[in-house]
Amino acid sequence: MPALVGKRYFNYGGQGPVAQVTLDAIFAAHRQVQKLGPFSGAANQWVTAEAAQTRAAIAAELGTTADTITLTEDVTVGCNIPLWGIDWQAGDHMLLSDCEHPGIIAAVQEICRRFGVSYSLCPLLETINGSGDPAAVVADHLQPNTRLLVISHIFWNTGQVLPLERIVQVCRDRPNPVLTLVDAAQSVGALPLDLPSSGVDFYAFTGHKWWCGPAGLGGLYVRPEAREHLAPTFIGWRGITTDAAANPTGWKPSGQRYEVATSNYPLLAGLRAAIAYQAEWGSAPQRYQRLVELAQRLWSQLQDLPQIRTVRQSPPDSGLVSFWVLEQGEPSPAWHKRLVDELETQQVYLRTLQAPNCVRACTHYLTLEAEVDELVAAIAATLKRGLG
Amino acid sequence: MPALVGKRYFNYGGQGPVAQVTLDAIFAAHRQVQKLGPFSGAANQWVTAEAAQTRAAIAAELGTTADTITLTEDVTVGCNIPLWGIDWQAGDHMLLSDCEHPGIIAAVQEICRRFGVSYSLCPLLETINGSGDPAAVVADHLQPNTRLLVISHIFWNTGQVLPLERIVQVCRDRPNPVLTLVDAAQSVGALPLDLPSSGVDFYAFTGHKWWCGPAGLGGLYVRPEAREHLAPTFIGWRGITTDAAANPTGWKPSGQRYEVATSNYPLLAGLRAAIAYQAEWGSAPQRYQRLVELAQRLWSQLQDLPQIRTVRQSPPDSGLVSFWVLEQGEPSPAWHKRLVDELETQQVYLRTLQAPNCVRACTHYLTLEAEVDELVAAIAATLKRGLG
Repeated sequence: MPALVGKRYFNYGGQGPVAQVTLDAIFAAHRQVQKLGPFSGAANQWVTAEAAQTRAAIAAELGTTADTITLTEDVTVGCNIPLWGIDWQAGDHMLLSDCEHPGIIAAVQEICRRFGVSYSLCPLLETINGSGDPAAVVADHLQPNTRLLVISHIFWNTGQVLPLERIVQVCRDRPNPVLTLVDAAQSVGALPLDLPSSGVDFYAFTGHKWWCGPAGLGGLYVRPEAREHLAPTFIGWRGITTDAAANPTGWKPSGQRYEVATSNYPLLAGLRAAIAYQAEWGSAPQRYQRLVELAQRLWSQLQDLPQIRTVRQSPPDSGLVSFWVLEQGEPSPAWHKRLVDELETQQVYLRTLQAPNCVRACTHYLTLEAEVDELVAAIAATLKRGLG
Repeated sequence: MPALVGKRYFNYGGQGPVAQVTLDAIFAAHRQVQKLGPFSGAANQWVTAEAAQTRAAIAAELGTTADTITLTEDVTVGCNIPLWGIDWQAGDHMLLSDCEHPGIIAAVQEICRRFGVSYSLCPLLETINGSGDPAAVVADHLQPNTRLLVISHIFWNTGQVLPLERIVQVCRDRPNPVLTLVDAAQSVGALPLDLPSSGVDFYAFTGHKWWCGPAGLGGLYVRPEAREHLAPTFIGWRGITTDAAANPTGWKPSGQRYEVATSNYPLLAGLRAAIAYQAEWGSAPQRYQRLVELAQRLWSQLQDLPQIRTVRQSPPDSGLVSFWVLEQGEPSPAWHKRLVDELETQQVYLRTLQAPNCVRACTHYLTLEAEVDELVAAIAATLKRGLG
C-alpha cells in the first residue's frame, strides 16, 4: 500500500489506503474504457459486466445476492435513497440514535420540514459504558407513529458495535413494524456480515473506508420485501426500463432501480481488487478478530497514560478507539487538535471528532503491533512536551 | 488521445475520449491522495482546493462565477437536484420538450406521481425542419400553472440548438414566471456559453462528453437568485454548515449546498486537464465553428447517398448529425443497428437512437476532414454490400 510507506496510519474510519493492485486495477480499467470506446457497443457491454461483477462481489461480502445491491457514489447517497423513497405522511416520526453523522441528520431534518414529519433522538451514546441495553433503549423510544429507525451499525464516534439483529427485531415486532436504515460506513469491510439474517431493510455503505477501495464508490442493500415499497427518488437511465421508442415503462426489477446515470466505471474494478486483496489475508471473521485485538492493544496501552482517558471504559469491540486528552482533569478540545496536528507532522495519522470532542485512532487487520506501540509512544512524547 | 489510435470516432455525444494528459492527471491525483493521507489534514486541504479550482475552471467556461457551480456525478444528478428541490404544490405543471432523455422523463413522472403535479410535452422535434419557432411553440404550450420548463440546449437526438435566451425570456415574461431547467449534456464543451446573460435558472452538464473529461464528474449551474428558493434534496456533509458540536446549522452559502459527500476526487484534476487541453486548440467560439464545419461536411456528403436521409434537412448548427437508412423509401431500424454494428467491427464508432429511430454521428473540433470522408465511404460501402 503506497500510502503506508513511512507512515503510521490510524484513519481507516475516515478513508482506507488503497493497495497498489487496487490502483493498478483502476488505471488499467481507465485504459480499457479508452481502448474499447469510450462509447461503443463493446464499451457498453464491458460497463454492464463490470457493474454486475461488482454487485456480485459486494453481495458475497454481505451474505446476500447481487439483485439486492445498488451501486452509489458514497454511503450518504445510500442513506438518502431510503430516506427520500418512503411515502412519508404528515405526522410520521423517525427515530435516530444520538450518534448519527451530521450529514444524515441534516437530510432527516429537511424531510421533516418538507413532509410534516418529526424526528427524535434516542440516547445510545451513553450505552457504550454499560448504562442500558441499546435494543431496550430503542424499544423505549419508538413511538406509535414511528416509521423508520436510522442507526449506525458501528458508531463512528465511540466505535460501539450495536446489536443489529436485536434492534431490527424490536422494530419488526411492533404492531406497526418500523423500517430500519443502517449507516454502515464503519461496519462494512470490518465486521463479518449476513444481512438477510439480520432482517435489516436498508444498509448503506462505502468502499473507501474499511474495504480500502477507491473513494467515490459505495452501495446500498435493500431487503427484497422492502424494495417494492421504496420508490426511486433521484432517477436516471440506469434505473429505468424503456420500450422500443425509449419511453420509460417502469423500474429495473433489482436494486439497480436506485442507480442514476454515468459513474466513474474504472472504480468498479478497483473495489473488486480491494475486496480480493483483503480476502488474501484472511476471512472476514479472521480480519475482524485481528483488528479488534489491535484496538484492544491500543486501548490497553492508553490506560497507562495519565493525561488520556478513553471514551470507552471497557476493551473495544471494533477498530475505532476514541479518547480524550485531559487538562486539569477535563477533556481539552485545544489539545485534541494540537495532538492530531503535531502527530501529522511526524507522519502519524489520527483525527479529531466534535461530538464528543475527542481524538479517534483506528486499527485495521493490517495494522502492525509495532505501529500501535509507536503511536502510544508518540502520543506520550507529545503530551509530555506540552503538558509537562 | 489513446482512444483514437486506429479508430474513426464519432460518439462524442455519448462519451468523449480522454487525452493522455487527462489520464495522467487522474493517475497522478490518485497517487497524491495516497501520498498525502489518504485521510489527513493535508489530504483534506488538498481535496478542498481541488474542488474549488475545478468549480472555478468550470465557471470560467460557462461565463459565471464559482459560487454558482455544484459538482455532481453526472448531468442526470444535476437535473434531479432542481427537479426535486422545487416546493411542488398539487396542481402545478411542468412543460417538457418532446426530445428529452428518458431518464429525465422518468424523474418528472415520479415527481408528478408523488406531488400531484402534471406534465405535458411541447412539440419541438418537428421545429428542426422549420415548422415553427421553438420559443413560440414553448410560449403556446405554457399553462397558467406551469412552474418549470425542462428543455435541452442541444437536442441529443436531432442535434438542434435551441434559442435558449429567447425561450428563457418567454418563461420569465409570464405573469407567474416559469423556472427553466436545461439539460446541457450536449452543449457544454461544444457551444460558447454565457449562462448569466441567458437568464437560465438551472443548467445541468457533464464533463465526459464534449469536454472529453472523465466519466463520473459533471455539474449544475444555479442562478444565484434561484438558489434561495431551491432546497437541497439528497444531503450530506459537503452541503451543510455545522456548529462546534457538529450539529447542522444550515446550507453552505454557494452551490456547494447541493453537493452530498465523498466523490472520486482524482477526477477533478482530470476534468481541469481536459478543459485546459481543449483551450490549447482554440477558444470556445473557434472550437464551435470548427465542429460545425465538420458536421456540415458530413451532412453534405450524406446528401449524396441515396439510401440515407438526414433527419435535418438543412445544414447542422451543432456537432450531432442524425440520419435514417432507407429501405424501400422508409427508415429501417434493423439497418440502423446493422450499420452501427458493422462499422464498429471496422473501428468506426456511431450509435443508434430510438426516438426517432435513426443513427447518430458526432463531429468534434478535433475530428479530421479525412475521418469524415472515411466515415461516409464506410457507410456507403456497408450499405452497398447490404442493400445492393
